[in-house]
Order: sequence, then C-alpha cells, then structure tokens
Amino acid sequence: MNKKRVNRRQFIKGAAVSSVAVSLLPKVALGSYRKNSKMRIGVIGTGLRGQWHIKLALRREDVEIPVICDIDEQMIGMALSVYDDAERPHPKIYKNGEKDYQNLLQKEDLDGVIVATPWHWHAPMAVAAMESGKHVGVEVPAGLTENECWGLVRASEITGKFCMILENVCYRRDVIAVLNMVREGLFGELLHCQGGYQHDLRHVKFNDGQGPYGNGVEFGKKGFSEAKWRTQNSVDRNGDLYPTHGVGPVSTMLDINRGNRFVHLTSTATQTRGLHKYIVDQAGPDHPNASVKFRLGDIVTTVIKCANGQTVMLSHDTNSPRPYSLNFRVQGTRGLWMKDNNSIFIEGVSPEGHQWEPDEPYLEKYDHSLWKRFSGAKNVLSHTGHGGMDFFIVRAFLESIKRGVTPPIDVYDAVSMSVISPLSEKSIARGSTSVKFPDFTRGKWKTNKPIFALNDEY
Amino acid sequence: MNKKRVNRRQFIKGAAVSSVAVSLLPKVALGSYRKNSKMRIGVIGTGLRGQWHIKLALRREDVEIPVICDIDEQMIGMALSVYDDAERPHPKIYKNGEKDYQNLLQKEDLDGVIVATPWHWHAPMAVAAMESGKHVGVEVPAGLTENECWGLVRASEITGKFCMILENVCYRRDVIAVLNMVREGLFGELLHCQGGYQHDLRHVKFNDGQGPYGNGVEFGKKGFSEAKWRTQNSVDRNGDLYPTHGVGPVSTMLDINRGNRFVHLTSTATQTRGLHKYIVDQAGPDHPNASVKFRLGDIVTTVIKCANGQTVMLSHDTNSPRPYSLNFRVQGTRGLWMKDNNSIFIEGVSPEGHQWEPDEPYLEKYDHSLWKRFSGAKNVLSHTGHGGMDFFIVRAFLESIKRGVTPPIDVYDAVSMSVISPLSEKSIARGSTSVKFPDFTRGKWKTNKPIFALNDEY
Repeated sequence: MNKKRVNRRQFIKGAAVSSVAVSLLPKVALGSYRKNSKMRIGVIGTGLRGQWHIKLALRREDVEIPVICDIDEQMIGMALSVYDDAERPHPKIYKNGEKDYQNLLQKEDLDGVIVATPWHWHAPMAVAAMESGKHVGVEVPAGLTENECWGLVRASEITGKFCMILENVCYRRDVIAVLNMVREGLFGELLHCQGGYQHDLRHVKFNDGQGPYGNGVEFGKKGFSEAKWRTQNSVDRNGDLYPTHGVGPVSTMLDINRGNRFVHLTSTATQTRGLHKYIVDQAGPDHPNASVKFRLGDIVTTVIKCANGQTVMLSHDTNSPRPYSLNFRVQGTRGLWMKDNNSIFIEGVSPEGHQWEPDEPYLEKYDHSLWKRFSGAKNVLSHTGHGGMDFFIVRAFLESIKRGVTPPIDVYDAVSMSVISPLSEKSIARGSTSVKFPDFTRGKWKTNKPIFALNDEY
Repeated sequence: MNKKRVNRRQFIKGAAVSSVAVSLLPKVALGSYRKNSKMRIGVIGTGLRGQWHIKLALRREDVEIPVICDIDEQMIGMALSVYDDAERPHPKIYKNGEKDYQNLLQKEDLDGVIVATPWHWHAPMAVAAMESGKHVGVEVPAGLTENECWGLVRASEITGKFCMILENVCYRRDVIAVLNMVREGLFGELLHCQGGYQHDLRHVKFNDGQGPYGNGVEFGKKGFSEAKWRTQNSVDRNGDLYPTHGVGPVSTMLDINRGNRFVHLTSTATQTRGLHKYIVDQAGPDHPNASVKFRLGDIVTTVIKCANGQTVMLSHDTNSPRPYSLNFRVQGTRGLWMKDNNSIFIEGVSPEGHQWEPDEPYLEKYDHSLWKRFSGAKNVLSHTGHGGMDFFIVRAFLESIKRGVTPPIDVYDAVSMSVISPLSEKSIARGSTSVKFPDFTRGKWKTNKPIFALNDEY
C-alpha cells in the first residue's frame, strides 16, 4: 500500500457517521461513513458492460472515476465518449497489455474497483484489487474454478476488503418483490425454486467483427465485443456457464450462506447442435467456423440440494432460438409464483382453489421499498439498463463503499453462485454424478444473518 | 392354458383379415383380425378407475365384460351400477380374497384383461394375466421395482401376449398434436422435454372414509378409495412415484425404445412438509395421523439423459397447494412449446423473433387424425373422462386385441416409463447420484420403429 493511499484512508476516517439508519443495518463496519469526499473508483474493462457501469456511476456527484483500464482501443474510445456525455474530465488510461491492470492497482489511490472484463480475468483481477487495498465489484461470474472461488474468499478475509458480485437480477423489480413475499411468509416455508439463463445468445456469440449483435458467424480474434472471448467458452466447456442471473435471486430468498447453503448438485446436458447449425445456416457448410467442435450442450439442467432441504432447478439454454426467460419459479408450502405465465397461487388467499391468478397485483402490493423510493426519480432510472436493476446494483456497490460496510451481496454469495459452473462441468463430465459444494463460509452459514435488501438503503 | 381357451383361439384364427389399413401398420401380428365375434374382456380392480374402464368398454357393441374381480363390496356394487346403466347383464364376480384374481385368470376364457388395482398389484396381476394366455392393459405405473419391470418383459416375450400400459395422457389432444409437430419437424431436432405430475393430491391421499375427495385426514384402513392404499406410498417411499403421465407423451416424441432410449437419471427431493401440515391444519396436532412420518419429499425433480443426447426433466409435486399442471415443454433446435403459458415459438415461422405466440392455432393445425376422426362422435367422447383421452387409450387396447396386433404402447414402453420410480428412489437415497436405466429391449431399441398413433386407427 503506498503512502498516498494511507493518507487518504486517514482522511476518510475523520468523516463522521451521520445516519441512524446505517447504524441499524446488520453490516460489518469496514471503514467509516464518508460525507464530503468523493469516492474514487477505477474501472477495469471498458467494453460495453464497463461503459454502462461508468455511465451509471458518473451520474452521481459523489463519484469520480479517475482511471480506467482496457487493451482495446475502440472500447477505450467508446468509454471516453461516456465521459464526454457526462461532462467529466477524461481519466488516466492503463492500456499497455493484459497485465497493466496490476500497475493501475499498485499505483492508484482508489476506494474501489469495478471489474468488467472477460470472464477468465474476473477472479485474478478481483483478488489483485483486494490485495492492493481496494474494494471490488466484479461482474458475473466471479470465478471459473473452485480454486478461483477459494482465492476470492481468502483474499477478502485476509485483506478485509469486500468482493461484491454485480448480480443485477437480484434487484429486478419482480424478483425483489417476490423476495418480500417470501420474507413475509406468503409462500409458507420454501420448498423449491427455479431459475436459469434461457437466452438465445447466437447473435452475441457470433457477429461480423464490426458490431456486437446479429450478422456474421465470426468469433475469437475476428469477433467483436463478447464474441471475441465469450464464445470460446462454448468450445471448451460443457456445463452451466452462466448460473448467477438465475440463482442469485433465489439465493437471497433461500438465505443461502445465511442459515442455509447449497449442498450438492447434478447437471445434465443435451447434445450440441445450435451453434454449428447457426454457422451453417448463416454462412454455409464451407465457412471455416463450420468445422469448429463445440462442447457446450445446448441445454444444461442443474438441480441443487440445499442444507435446509429445498431444491433449486437451473436451466442454461443459450444456443437455440427461444424467447428470453430466466425461468423463475418460487414455491413453498402455501403456494407458488411462476414467471413464465405471470401467475401466482396462494392457498387461502387466492380466490379459487387450484387456480392461478395474475401476479401483477401481488407484485404491486409487495413492491420493494428500494423501488418505491427510487422509481419516481426519472434521472436516476431512465436509460439505466435492464429495467433499472443495473442502477441498484451499482448503487449498492457505491453505497457500501461510502458507508464503510459490507455489501448486500458479499464474497460468499459471489462464490456460492459462481462455483455452480465448475461443479456443473464436473457433474456432466462424470455422467451427471452428484457433486458436493465446498462450504466457503467454513460453517459460518449456520449463524450468519441475511444482509440483502433489508430496507430501502441498498 | 385350459382346453376351452385353446378352442376359442382356434375359432378366432378362422376370422379373415379384412382391412387394408391394418396390413399397412408396422405391427407384429399376434393373432388374426376379428370381424364378428365379441371381444371378451375381464376387469380386475373395480374401483373408481376400473368402473370408468368398464363404462367406456361397454359402450362398444363388440365388447363384453363377462367377469370382474374385486374384494371391496362397495366398489363391486358401484361397478354393477355401471352395467345397469349400460343395460348389460351383470358379470360373474371374483371376490374371495386378494388371490381370487388367479382363479379368474385360470378359469375364464378371455381375450384380454384390464388391471386397475392398487399399484403393488399391477405387475403380479399383469404377469399372471399374460401367463394365462390373455393380453393385458395395466394401469399406471406398470411396475414398482426393476425386478417387476423385468418380469413384465419376460412374461410378454415368453407368452407372446402383450402388456399395454394404459397411459392416457399420451392421447391428450394437445400433446398428441405436439407429437404431430415433432414428427413433421416443426421443432427441428429435439433437445429437451419436460413433463411431470404437479397435482395437489392432498384431498386424494386423505379423506373421511366415506367419499373420495375432500374432508378428513384418514388413510389406510380408515380411508376411502385411493386413500386406502396410495397414501402409504408417501409414508414408505421417496422418489418420483408417478412419472408416467409426464414421461409417456414425451417418450413418444423422443422415440424411446424405438431409435432412442433412456440412459441415466438423477433425482433430488425437497424436504417433507405438505402432508403432515395438511393433517395438522385440518385436524389439529393431536390427531393420530399427525404423528405419521412421511418419507416422500414434497417436490421431486428428476433429470433423464437419452441415448440420442436429449434430456427430460420431470417434476413430481403432489403434497402442496398448487394449480394442476403436467409441466409439458418440448424443445428442439428450431423452437419450443410450453404448456404452462400456452405458447409456442418456432424460428422462421413465428412472426416476431424471440417472442412467444399462442399455441392454439398450432394445436388446431396439427390436430391428430385420431381426434379429427372421433371428436365429432358425441356418443363416443362425451363423459369419457380426462378430456376424452381415456376413450382413446381404452380404444387402443381393444382395437389391438381385435386386430391381433401389438398395441401402440407396449411392454417396453410400460417398463421404461414405470422404472423411473425405483431408479428415482435409488438416486435420492444415494444423494442424487446418477443411476443407469436397464435396457429392457436388450438392444432392440436401435432398430425398433415407432408404433404410437401413426394414423387414425388407434
């Protein structure tokens, strides 16, 4: 830690804790509340997702992003346009090769770092950020292997810096309203949840190297944006590659890592057809990519068992034509909610026995206080992506830094969600055998209390 | 085989094959087409389900049911009322204890037997029926253990008599229309199917001993109808106890046993809450049944892998308040159908990319020829139960006897569906480990051709 950093931290400690609400939150104090000084945030990875985070963060007057890092000149240029639009001075840029982020972390005095790079960089960069004394907000998934997940936990525990996974769907208006319903006991005791990532990504995995979506069947060096690196995962790996959007929200409902935990899973994959078919359909059988062998089964079904008995079914379905759906279903001893038919049934509440009713009145009634508080603020929520949930995830990251508390989605959540991918790969490779989850909390899940979205703070 | 039986078979062989359509069917001839003589059917088990079969069969002038068997006087009386309503003479009744069905099978000259008894009698009775020279239609599930399933296969192969599982949902109007879509390639190559049995059976598993549904928390000796015996399965077993309604229809779509087969499965069960809660809620914590320990997890999720790569997810969910749903989803490389939202999406056919459209026009367009042929015949379809599908399953059983051909759902289908229960129990007992399916066809699945609902015959 350099001298500048130490001085800055001493300065911050001088700020007074000013909010009674904050003191009521069951958070571990990591520092002190910051009233006057601006938070200094770095962004590593200024692709489309990183640009989005920059845009959201720069809307806040208490945030500055004095430094960014990427190795793609085009993406850096696009990021600078975001600064221009926000009428902010351009940042310092680290762009000298894949390891230049290490220079950024060592040299810069920052409160926190957002990591929005290709997946395989998430864990190494997040660990390095914490080791350099910075809190980190890392895009999904946080780690790709069990070892990477353990590395994140160790780094956070040793450094005292937090690692928040930026799992935005936890804040989606409907699922966080359903979380309210769960907490108020509407479903009784939870039994079974479903989630997943059912999203036709063929137009993301392939493009023409010029624009991100549609047109072309290129990937890797010839691809643009995510096609540059994401698609290779479909070549090399067979498993649930992207579990967090589906499992994040149900983790909060099931109190995972806080009274409950994932115990084991099985995964089963279908045959591999969609990506090859797409290449051939679009560019003919003679295109070089028509000979690429993809390993990823088109649909991967994962079933998780929880310590408290519940089951979670996840579907990963990204290679086939289909409407988008995160496959949510939340079921307990009194009833259930199902997103795909926008319906709910609660025994003793729903007017007709055995009959669905529309979920909309329930979603309105149980609208989360966070949404109630901020949904009226047009400047905050307009154009903030994914129906506003990105606003909340970035806000939670920044507010946790500002208040000096653990974030509402912490390193244990980051790894219990992310480790599903490597466990899923292992299960499939072994004929769908049952694979045990590591207990990343080392027993603390038994006594930890829920921390996510307990009120309208973050 | 007694003398009378042999004489009768010789008589039947004298009947001429009269239909060109029949000769086109890819069926194995088991006997000859019967033009003039009435089929003689016996019914073992005259509970509510057996009464229903009697009612349906007696609507046909080419059928007589000269003999029935049960040990419950009340149910026998109700069955006789069905004869009265049909203006048919009363049958001979075997009712002298649980083994009296053996006397029926040994003494009576019958073409076929319908078995609609409690589950644990299905396999022994079906085997005994075949060994006595009679074709058998057996209610679901056909067997409860791997051994019972093998016993059914061996009996059918040795005797040359068929064992048809009476899985009515295979004929449900929507799923058989979807089968048409599958066969015409609308979904492309199939990847993943879902099915299940999501049915709040608390009012079936418990009653007051007087009527079948609602009221009371009695079961076993104090229960009525299915509560007498079905509920004990929830005490003794933890697994997918009732897989055939969900898996039967998708088996036909996936060509199971005919070019494809089930290879392995995993099952995962939730905690056990619903039945105990129901007893306490209805009758208080001091009711004797409040101390019964149920083993069945409230929701059991099973994932099956097929030899051709596809996966099947089944949900068994019978202890909780919820709307009825068999959970159907059929997905291929071009699109998918999903029952719970009554929607379909087919790439290049659906007008909007990534957008569901209502399934109704598709279900009409692909309405199966069987339904087209018979849906106009009011006398045939009215009051025939479960939206008409019971008519078709009973018809298929009877027509197979009449035409002397293998039925459209044969012994291999009966056991590949039914064996899911014991395999599921094994998987759960071993922490959701992957469990292999026996190949009941002993390799013949590779060359067998589809036989189900190929035209409007049965």
